[in-house]
Amino acid sequence: MSETASKAGQVWAHVGQPFVNPGYDVIVAGAGRMGAACALYLRQLAPDLRLLLLDEGGLPNEDGATILAPGVWSGQDLPAAWQAEAAWVRAQLVTAFGEVGFEDRPLLEFHEQEADDTVASSDLQARFPILSGLVQVDRLPFARLDPRAATYRPGAVALACAQQAIRQGADLMLNAHATLIPGGVQVERLTVTNTHQIVTHETHMLSAPQVIIALGAEGPYAAEHDLGVHTAHARAYRQVPRLNVSSDAASPILRTSGLTLRPQTGGFTLVPAIHHRDPHGYLPQGGHLTGVPTGLRRETLEDLVALMDLLPALATEALELGRSISDVPGAWLALPGGSPRGRPQHQALPGARLLLGGPLADVLGLSTAYDLAASVAGVQTRPWS
Amino acid sequence: MSETASKAGQVWAHVGQPFVNPGYDVIVAGAGRMGAACALYLRQLAPDLRLLLLDEGGLPNEDGATILAPGVWSGQDLPAAWQAEAAWVRAQLVTAFGEVGFEDRPLLEFHEQEADDTVASSDLQARFPILSGLVQVDRLPFARLDPRAATYRPGAVALACAQQAIRQGADLMLNAHATLIPGGVQVERLTVTNTHQIVTHETHMLSAPQVIIALGAEGPYAAEHDLGVHTAHARAYRQVPRLNVSSDAASPILRTSGLTLRPQTGGFTLVPAIHHRDPHGYLPQGGHLTGVPTGLRRETLEDLVALMDLLPALATEALELGRSISDVPGAWLALPGGSPRGRPQHQALPGARLLLGGPLADVLGLSTAYDLAASVAGVQTRPWS
Repeated sequence: MSETASKAGQVWAHVGQPFVNPGYDVIVAGAGRMGAACALYLRQLAPDLRLLLLDEGGLPNEDGATILAPGVWSGQDLPAAWQAEAAWVRAQLVTAFGEVGFEDRPLLEFHEQEADDTVASSDLQARFPILSGLVQVDRLPFARLDPRAATYRPGAVALACAQQAIRQGADLMLNAHATLIPGGVQVERLTVTNTHQIVTHETHMLSAPQVIIALGAEGPYAAEHDLGVHTAHARAYRQVPRLNVSSDAASPILRTSGLTLRPQTGGFTLVPAIHHRDPHGYLPQGGHLTGVPTGLRRETLEDLVALMDLLPALATEALELGRSISDVPGAWLALPGGSPRGRPQHQALPGARLLLGGPLADVLGLSTAYDLAASVAGVQTRPWS
Repeated sequence: MSETASKAGQVWAHVGQPFVNPGYDVIVAGAGRMGAACALYLRQLAPDLRLLLLDEGGLPNEDGATILAPGVWSGQDLPAAWQAEAAWVRAQLVTAFGEVGFEDRPLLEFHEQEADDTVASSDLQARFPILSGLVQVDRLPFARLDPRAATYRPGAVALACAQQAIRQGADLMLNAHATLIPGGVQVERLTVTNTHQIVTHETHMLSAPQVIIALGAEGPYAAEHDLGVHTAHARAYRQVPRLNVSSDAASPILRTSGLTLRPQTGGFTLVPAIHHRDPHGYLPQGGHLTGVPTGLRRETLEDLVALMDLLPALATEALELGRSISDVPGAWLALPGGSPRGRPQHQALPGARLLLGGPLADVLGLSTAYDLAASVAGVQTRPWS
């Protein structure tokens, strides 16, 4: 066995692989991009800490917000205080995780009103011919250009982080449901029966000095239900419908009135604005458009209808509305601090640390995961400051 | 028959009273405070128009927002452009409708930060001894005082408006479900069977040149479902829990962080802030407080928990939390323009006019109803301008 192989962590992917608790210093519940990145940075900053990364699904988990995240990096609307941090995230995306689909793509944000940093939208048409078919430039005559913007695949980042963390010694258990308990985690190893029921195969009580809750929008609920700690965080159900208008590697990211059009796999993924949290107990459901059922929730549908004059393709069959909620990709997104403008953050709770991504995770998620890892490791410096 | 009696309108309260359509110029669907006031002002401004006022329930209807409206008049946070209008509403409340529970009550709004128009909260304690038991004045050291504020009973206003409208010649039909149709209204007269089912006794198709939709939060839905007209309005479910701390005629209205404490029947009614619309399909449900089910929706519960340090009575049994949603009074409230800050408004739709009250209906509702009536009557002037 080579030195590298002997240092790699163990992976329990299914219940057929027997698990005996070797004892852990840190348990990270949730292997989305926030949890996986935190695990990787912990291996790098505190290699002596024995670490277990858990996920209820596979890797990458197809149920969470990571897999549906837009993967749009832009510093355009960030406060100055966060610019250096965001730039560090960009550099990480370019260099640290191998192939994650990183592509430089300018972001064009269109406005009806002129501002200090806007240019004439018509001046951009020659450089970006795709605009002619998509944006009513005469109705949106001004644009802000972010030449440093980029797109990437957050799911690939999560996968790369988890794999690197394992190569650097983290253990990983998949199909493992985590319940927080004082001083540790109760882990139910899940399996699927012949009749497609998900059942618990076995349960382990794992104690650990450090527990990191990286369960996305479920994190605050776990903190409250399992630990009895109430937080101010909230969540919103975000759908990302497809717009079948041709795009290619030269297509820019487009944005207007909070709607982002992200070039993806030959078309566009629409990323609607999140205006506010959804109330407790809300069950996502499709809305109706003049009586016809669609798979888009009503609020998103209304926003798209309001933009049809400015983006005429939204009024065509190019927009995949679906017929019911399951037809349109969507996921619960954490809203740190309860706000759609809340940045990624971590929070010390009695008995655990809560790590949240949310709407700005594409830009500040990796740095927040790093910050938490450094905090656990007792490292004072941050590479971006 | 006296002249007055001969001019009074007819009332159909139940299906035992036969109805033959006499023909109407205006049908007002909804006899909450907005619809009833509009009906009254129409009788005054356009006495030649034959008018029918409809309501699905009784009078006042106990299901709508009117009966649970706070009934707090204050010009404190209104833009200057609306002050004269609000003052006219105040004068109407004092003089126009008889006994509606109008009481002058100062409004005290407490803040952590000083501002131009704030005074020291401690200076108010001598004048308002009730503060000592309710407000942590050392945590909220600054206050704005609105000496012109008042409380009244919106349900009584709706009832008085409807009764005056009938005395002045409007017809009224209760237990009548209205469906909008092109050029009029389809009316189902409802009755209750021995087995407590609500059934349609008979249906009438009533044509009218003018149809006014005053169905509160249901109005925009009726416009869309019945007429196919999409609007930008929204709604929110507002609960008004009771706080059993003694109040009397001298007790001021209290407000902090958007929560209003309205003295009512010897205690206080809490009127929580509305932060944003509820999504389509949301079903109100009780939240949990550290595992214990309550009748307050989660969002309101969280707001109250956040204020417990400032208003310690909220942390006691004086707050009636209930056990399930039906324990706490609540109603759907229209949000004109989709915003909790949207003022009452009317809107011309193809085939009808939509009249909406919403969160500011206590202050600007009557004037908006007047404005619509004057618009239908072809009257150019408004008494407040």
